[in-house]
Amino acid sequence: MTDPEPTVGRRVTIKDVARAAGVGVVSVSRALNDQPGVSNETRERIRETARSLGYRPNRHARFLKLSSSRSIALMMKGIDNPFFQQMLETVENAARERDYLLSVIKVPHYADEVDEAIMLVDEEAVAGLIFLGGNFTHQPGDLARLQVPFVLSTIGQLEGIDPGSYSSVAVDDFAESRRATQYLLGLGHRRIALLGVGLRDSSVGMLRRRGYQAALADAGSPSDDGLVRGLDLNGRSPYSFEYGYQLMTRLLAERPDVTGIFAVADVIAIGALKAALDHGLRVPQDLSIVGFDGIQVGQYVHPSLTTLVQPALEIAELTCQILFDSISGAPARQELLQGELRLGGTAGPPRRGDLVGPR
Amino acid sequence: MTDPEPTVGRRVTIKDVARAAGVGVVSVSRALNDQPGVSNETRERIRETARSLGYRPNRHARFLKLSSSRSIALMMKGIDNPFFQQMLETVENAARERDYLLSVIKVPHYADEVDEAIMLVDEEAVAGLIFLGGNFTHQPGDLARLQVPFVLSTIGQLEGIDPGSYSSVAVDDFAESRRATQYLLGLGHRRIALLGVGLRDSSVGMLRRRGYQAALADAGSPSDDGLVRGLDLNGRSPYSFEYGYQLMTRLLAERPDVTGIFAVADVIAIGALKAALDHGLRVPQDLSIVGFDGIQVGQYVHPSLTTLVQPALEIAELTCQILFDSISGAPARQELLQGELRLGGTAGPPRRGDLVGPR
Repeated sequence: MTDPEPTVGRRVTIKDVARAAGVGVVSVSRALNDQPGVSNETRERIRETARSLGYRPNRHARFLKLSSSRSIALMMKGIDNPFFQQMLETVENAARERDYLLSVIKVPHYADEVDEAIMLVDEEAVAGLIFLGGNFTHQPGDLARLQVPFVLSTIGQLEGIDPGSYSSVAVDDFAESRRATQYLLGLGHRRIALLGVGLRDSSVGMLRRRGYQAALADAGSPSDDGLVRGLDLNGRSPYSFEYGYQLMTRLLAERPDVTGIFAVADVIAIGALKAALDHGLRVPQDLSIVGFDGIQVGQYVHPSLTTLVQPALEIAELTCQILFDSISGAPARQELLQGELRLGGTAGPPRRGDLVGPR
Repeated sequence: MTDPEPTVGRRVTIKDVARAAGVGVVSVSRALNDQPGVSNETRERIRETARSLGYRPNRHARFLKLSSSRSIALMMKGIDNPFFQQMLETVENAARERDYLLSVIKVPHYADEVDEAIMLVDEEAVAGLIFLGGNFTHQPGDLARLQVPFVLSTIGQLEGIDPGSYSSVAVDDFAESRRATQYLLGLGHRRIALLGVGLRDSSVGMLRRRGYQAALADAGSPSDDGLVRGLDLNGRSPYSFEYGYQLMTRLLAERPDVTGIFAVADVIAIGALKAALDHGLRVPQDLSIVGFDGIQVGQYVHPSLTTLVQPALEIAELTCQILFDSISGAPARQELLQGELRLGGTAGPPRRGDLVGPR
């Protein structure tokens, strides 16, 4: 299917290309690496020349510094979640800028990501690991079994684990969930459901549930376990449009008195919005919805989604920065970032009859 | 940050774990690899035992057969397009099942993917390549420069290139675009715009434009270049929600007589839908929209998107199958698959006044 390895006399070098094209080697490098500083015309001529000479930048170009230890692995729990997919691009950029190749590993929702990583890690195979997403509930001993630098990204802070033993980057899940819930409370809502987290969830889910509960408590609003809605998933991912649709459909059947929804992920919020509209409700007149994440498509549903935006690019960049610092020997670091409430059209005051009177 | 390499006496083996847990090695393997055939209780006990013994499956477990030549690379042009992101999961599954590690490379929209690949390919670094997405316009000589097996996925058929020199898997872009356009024609639309492809696009875009034009010609409907809408992108990806929003906004300003839209990607269709709704139009009463791809979120916008669904899973699986066959020495193969029209709520008959009378 492909040509056999050509019989090589002397390998064509970048200097040969420069000489034949009548330019300097810097221009050749710029032209072949899509960097600015050469005109389109010159770029085209250099590429033509390189092609005609059969120039292959093997063993010389940036990528060919790659040995297998020039790989980092992205362990994705939630590879089907647009929020994490959005971060993939930034992580790939960061890896490439540093001449690392990015390997992507899907971690099934039900699987133990540390076990998965340990099966992968051979000091010769990857130089570092990023754990992206998922409910991360591990003991100190688990993490110590990882023999390469790693960063937990968007996984929240670990409780009861020595901060010197791991690095992490996440939004402040507790504070931002409280803020999202406070926003609904401020609009006048009292019967606010939490979608996507059950009462027994741990890790990120737990932090977001606590933020929701704290906001209700601050407002003197009674906590109502019937409005906290997770779902038995049988190992399927909790972060999906379909899951949001199902949760909302069931909630509307069982608790038609609800006026506000805080969904712990935009995919859940978008699924819930669709269920509400299919059910004949007007959003936000009959029901308000606030999401969490800030995925792109949230601005293209109708009405646009009101949501707590995680600084995804910043999280991805900081994750990579810390990982590469660790590979160079820097100590562990935890970073907790702020989010931002983005107002769309899915949240407004509750129906008049639902406004809270004197209690 | 991580423990130093422990001083190893004898490495703990799977047999040690089996003995300590009082089970056979097959059960240990099943438990550690998440395969069926052991009870949850036994699985948990085996994992506990493996942890307590400090078992690390290095150099023995499936992943550790990995040398760098056990990698395949996915060259993604359109890493930000949910359609391709959706395929990533399937490709990762397929790679993993065969003990390959998947590396993901983002190819910028404006870059030449073959140049990018050649910079990457070292016979020692990757065993094969998948080119996913993008407008692929290359000469025979370009492809011959690739020294490893490769498959072009969702890139369409190449014209004027020896079919023995490349493998490809794609939906029949011409036939399926004709079908999508015919559907709008069948509903009674005559002023149908094509969104997302200009008159000079090549490759996949060209195939879809030709399908659209063929359907119009079959129906005896005049072709109208003012309704064929690409955009000068300055190197940005053409497949985005924002791009669809912009195209639609401009179209409504310039050609308010349009009644039907065929968008060559669902992201464009969803952006266009949002623009139409923001503009105060009712969909489908005032404007019908048909997309192309079948991404998940299309079923969660409101109304749900009517679209030509590409068999994404089948494409991804066949792509991997052909790549791994090629790595084993099989000859080149081209596969052209059928799509399926999925009816949502975005397409219906045109406004009464726009119905075509006798001409």
